[in-house]
Amino acid sequence: MEDLSKLKVTALAGGVGAARFLRGLIEVIPQENVSIIGNVGDDLTLYGLHISPDLDIIMYTLADLVCKDKGWGIEGDSFKCLNMLSRYGFDPWFKLGDMDLATHIYRTYLLRSGLTLSQATLELCKRLGLKIRLIPVTNDYLRTVIYSDAGRLPFQEYFVKRRCEPKLLSVVFEGAEEAEPAPGVLEALEEADVIILCPSNPILSIGPILAVKGIRSLLRKSLRPIVAVSPIVAGKALKGPADKIMLELGLKPSALTVAELYRDFLKVFVVDVRDESLKPEVEQLGIKVVLTDTIMSDLNKQIALARETLKAALEIHM
Amino acid sequence: MEDLSKLKVTALAGGVGAARFLRGLIEVIPQENVSIIGNVGDDLTLYGLHISPDLDIIMYTLADLVCKDKGWGIEGDSFKCLNMLSRYGFDPWFKLGDMDLATHIYRTYLLRSGLTLSQATLELCKRLGLKIRLIPVTNDYLRTVIYSDAGRLPFQEYFVKRRCEPKLLSVVFEGAEEAEPAPGVLEALEEADVIILCPSNPILSIGPILAVKGIRSLLRKSLRPIVAVSPIVAGKALKGPADKIMLELGLKPSALTVAELYRDFLKVFVVDVRDESLKPEVEQLGIKVVLTDTIMSDLNKQIALARETLKAALEIHM
Repeated sequence: MEDLSKLKVTALAGGVGAARFLRGLIEVIPQENVSIIGNVGDDLTLYGLHISPDLDIIMYTLADLVCKDKGWGIEGDSFKCLNMLSRYGFDPWFKLGDMDLATHIYRTYLLRSGLTLSQATLELCKRLGLKIRLIPVTNDYLRTVIYSDAGRLPFQEYFVKRRCEPKLLSVVFEGAEEAEPAPGVLEALEEADVIILCPSNPILSIGPILAVKGIRSLLRKSLRPIVAVSPIVAGKALKGPADKIMLELGLKPSALTVAELYRDFLKVFVVDVRDESLKPEVEQLGIKVVLTDTIMSDLNKQIALARETLKAALEIHM
Repeated sequence: MEDLSKLKVTALAGGVGAARFLRGLIEVIPQENVSIIGNVGDDLTLYGLHISPDLDIIMYTLADLVCKDKGWGIEGDSFKCLNMLSRYGFDPWFKLGDMDLATHIYRTYLLRSGLTLSQATLELCKRLGLKIRLIPVTNDYLRTVIYSDAGRLPFQEYFVKRRCEPKLLSVVFEGAEEAEPAPGVLEALEEADVIILCPSNPILSIGPILAVKGIRSLLRKSLRPIVAVSPIVAGKALKGPADKIMLELGLKPSALTVAELYRDFLKVFVVDVRDESLKPEVEQLGIKVVLTDTIMSDLNKQIALARETLKAALEIHM
């Protein structure tokens, strides 16, 4: 078998699910060989600070700072600044911890100093001792907006403030048509030995990435193994509202639906063993199915899933 | 005796000493009748945040939020964000607490939204439930710079980072010649029944205020009682480096020196009883001396000093 540690991997990533998968991946592949294209459709500006929730979740998880229970924020963080901000009249709906705030203060400082978001992200990663290359999909304006029965909602207002309760009518990626991929994004996809779509929400997390000019068409043309890990197991999202929003968009919450959303470029699909029955239908789409345990309940399982995913990708090339 | 609570008072104020005096004053005079002209020569920008240390000390003290031991910062604050910022490579020399940060985040947010510093300060005071009118002396650039045997040092670098250790050669108020008084500053001085110079460093705290265009000349022409409280007792500064810097500038650290620095406009000088021997020399400058206990060790003493100061000011008008 090929030495996995020599592979160059590029991953498309959302938040918590992706971060847990990637935490396993960097035990299998040296960080230097891993490029991560991150979602910025969830970004928001609060109190003048630029917040990139998905990038932060990945940084904190890979730097072993993350609050493991929640999957986001920093372990042991407190909320004194947020409490004081609410005294100043702000609704503290977005839970910014005191340590977490340092990231947003520093990022905003770097952006105001003239750095792009991808340059600022590189700097933050370096300072946290990370050697992965985390690249926001674009440095341009790209925002996921939810049209719902409660009206137009910027993503985090839908996701955090309203807890995904409003019924979703449609999802729009504002700016996607004009947004250019950040420097390094297309190169990372072209140079990768394996391209992985992490177990993230295919609509809300991977959707904004695929919506940026040139990315989906590059994947369609790519000769590299492109493998996705299903974020849906037995009709339920492992994390977040993927199942609920699929239903609201008239889609069946199922790994099969995820495969259909990726069918124009996906070559291998890692599906949970509990979904073995879906295998024939997915394979009818021309996508090879690999069954494994996709529930990442600890680091060993994260590592095992990363390893299985890489092996599955390589097998189609042998 | 006149009803003190009907007086309109305008105070020129630095940091800790002024704030303690003013905390007593607002027990004697309703907050609505108190205008405070604050020093902004100490202001600095850190991590992209606008910090106004003297304004904050006054707000926190009057809102009973201040850390009483230190005289600055917020009681019970923690430093988690600062620790994380140092992980991002910043030297955490300026001790920004987590709660304290909310003030700087909100102020910076308001300034970036287009408010002036005086408008932002008004908003912060309101949100903290204060009814005093705290006005930064100017909305324009005004920075106290120390030229020392360690070179040119912005004020906080001299004061906090270097702990006033370098020998001071001269003090410059950058921008003072061009800075306009903030809206309301000259009016507050014109409309006041009593003008008070708080027990603050006459060079580093009151100096930048007096350096702003029109203020010193207004005081010289004013027919109102103008009273100062000495920040020096028995040759020692009650707080801060006033005595040390007076020595380095070739001045004798003494209440007499303070009186000399204010002699062109000061009418009444409240001096500590321990300095009774200075009374003849100060009165030779044409300044009436009132002796009292100026050590503000608790709220009762703060109130007593405020009351004595007002009475002293009024007596010259009777």
